[in-house]
Amino acid sequence: MNYDELALSLHAQYKGKITTKLRDDSQLDREKLSAYYTPGVAAVSKAIADDPTLLPTYTWTNNLVAVISDGSAVLGLGDIGPKGSMPVMEGKSLLFKHFADIDSIPIILDVHTADEIVSVVKAIAPSFGAINLEDISAPKCFDVEERLKAELDIPVFHDDQHGTAVVVLAGLINAMKVTKKELADCKIVTIGAGAAGTAIIKLLHKYGVGSLVAVDSKGIICESRNDLNSEKQALLPFIDGSGSGSLENAIVDADIFIGVSKPGVLTQSMVKTMANQPIIFALANPTPEIMPDEAKAAGAAVVATGRSDFANQVNNALVFPGIFRGALDNKVSAITDEHKIAAAKVIASFVEMPTADNIIPSVFDERLVPAIAKVIC
Amino acid sequence: MNYDELALSLHAQYKGKITTKLRDDSQLDREKLSAYYTPGVAAVSKAIADDPTLLPTYTWTNNLVAVISDGSAVLGLGDIGPKGSMPVMEGKSLLFKHFADIDSIPIILDVHTADEIVSVVKAIAPSFGAINLEDISAPKCFDVEERLKAELDIPVFHDDQHGTAVVVLAGLINAMKVTKKELADCKIVTIGAGAAGTAIIKLLHKYGVGSLVAVDSKGIICESRNDLNSEKQALLPFIDGSGSGSLENAIVDADIFIGVSKPGVLTQSMVKTMANQPIIFALANPTPEIMPDEAKAAGAAVVATGRSDFANQVNNALVFPGIFRGALDNKVSAITDEHKIAAAKVIASFVEMPTADNIIPSVFDERLVPAIAKVIC
Repeated sequence: MNYDELALSLHAQYKGKITTKLRDDSQLDREKLSAYYTPGVAAVSKAIADDPTLLPTYTWTNNLVAVISDGSAVLGLGDIGPKGSMPVMEGKSLLFKHFADIDSIPIILDVHTADEIVSVVKAIAPSFGAINLEDISAPKCFDVEERLKAELDIPVFHDDQHGTAVVVLAGLINAMKVTKKELADCKIVTIGAGAAGTAIIKLLHKYGVGSLVAVDSKGIICESRNDLNSEKQALLPFIDGSGSGSLENAIVDADIFIGVSKPGVLTQSMVKTMANQPIIFALANPTPEIMPDEAKAAGAAVVATGRSDFANQVNNALVFPGIFRGALDNKVSAITDEHKIAAAKVIASFVEMPTADNIIPSVFDERLVPAIAKVIC
Repeated sequence: MNYDELALSLHAQYKGKITTKLRDDSQLDREKLSAYYTPGVAAVSKAIADDPTLLPTYTWTNNLVAVISDGSAVLGLGDIGPKGSMPVMEGKSLLFKHFADIDSIPIILDVHTADEIVSVVKAIAPSFGAINLEDISAPKCFDVEERLKAELDIPVFHDDQHGTAVVVLAGLINAMKVTKKELADCKIVTIGAGAAGTAIIKLLHKYGVGSLVAVDSKGIICESRNDLNSEKQALLPFIDGSGSGSLENAIVDADIFIGVSKPGVLTQSMVKTMANQPIIFALANPTPEIMPDEAKAAGAAVVATGRSDFANQVNNALVFPGIFRGALDNKVSAITDEHKIAAAKVIASFVEMPTADNIIPSVFDERLVPAIAKVIC
């Protein structure tokens, strides 16, 4: 189904997706207004000025996530600018509310260097309980996230990186059950070293896998290449950078392929050179690196994509609502690798009997968010 | 009544004052989620990227006002910083929702120079339909507002300045009916040349009054003083700067006193030197420049204060909901002096038969916001 027309008409009909309302839905008489605003509010302001840790006790920041983007890497559309990105950011705020009852507001930035983004986000950060960075292009997204994490005392989470990495790990945990393999023994090949690819590599390395070979548009990322930017050089400690060549060379005998790159880069003949029972995560959106039916015909044991119209959708919405729900509820100031791995295990556990077409639970399982939130502590 | 305890307990009970909800309150099934988020939302993003004027058609910016402060001049509390200011800003957002059904979010800034505030607000401005600057200290508030108005294509309104000025003008229009005087013939003395005082002087000058003498903490603002900062020098074209001396000198034969300064600076003996039927707006909060009973005992014909427990409350909540409702609905990109004067006339017209104790209408009159909104066009 093509959702374009439905999307345009729903957005125009409701004039956007979110709105505000008052927490206290009783009648606001003169007395209550005098408590919520002047003169009463002064006592609340004084209390917070004296002890800033009371901010979440008395203001909506306790349940508030800002979804922040400069619009430089929006969905598959690329750099469409802040205004173009707004419907996606407001959509993310809608998902926060829908799945985790988190108040969320979209903030789009008309600045584009890492330095500018960091200084603007730092300036407005006291307004929020946590920050979800979204659709900021690589490599600047790495710098932005790292600096904000270091300088702010609230959680900062770039969902394009870590949300994807957590679902991939969850899916792989269950794919192992289907193929009766162990991640510690598997050779994994990734293609795409942008936001998602980089985070997947780092999280799988942290979790522990047999070996990891990373490929970008120029070929295998390896020590002998002299065209690597600093972010890709920084990947070398996490991967096997001894080999060289193309994806075609890398993929031989691999147990797992993870694509976060471009449509069609994985061919059936490449799949046939993989180890037995190969696992294919073809996550390019909307058109995957290989279509599921082709991958299966070439021998794939398990196939996942980013799409809702195929089995095994790798969907960030499985992750970020629970991660932020937990961070806010448990007053966690930073999301660590341990949190991400714990979240992946929870997500995997929601599929009781994994099969080739069922390694990832439904986002509509209402028990998921509280279960993830519990382990973010 | 002391509202401190009620304020602290309500704020803690509800954990803040505002929350978000979805505009579409039908069940969000997989199909709707695919229209509000990926893949459908991409069509909406593309439409806006191609034509940025569609932003308010498809996103919540059409009804969204940011309340922005750096916490440098909060109520009567002074410079208590951004976190301390949050309850006030969230309270303002509550008033926007309650009185005008405007979605509003508080944004507090951890930067404090005019340059920094301007650049941060410019960077986040595409996120909003309009900007309400709040509780930013003078004189930087003038620079911040002027530059943002010049550089942004959405309304920017510093409520501490203009909201107060509009209600003062509305009150004076009705005080004229009570005392059977004409503003064009009146001598007005103001004391306090901060945000509100400056805006009151400029708006009354624009409206047309007999003469205006402005006093600050050092005395009458006049051409012969060499201690005036650039903002006070800029007031000279709007006032009678020929005299000199103290408030005591300025007040002789004045028809109208407007205080936005400090408790107790106007004495009964000064009131007795004013013209017949003097009008006193003693707006220092919470303790006025003279208490209403003292002013009346000294001969005042009409007294207004900033307090809700006396007659004639000068309350910004009479103004900003309607001004912003109109600006958003009528797609007005800047609030002009003509808008402010039109709003003051509407507010004044809501008191059918002005009397000494009834020159300003109630904020609870539900016809007020739409009536003001109509003239902001």
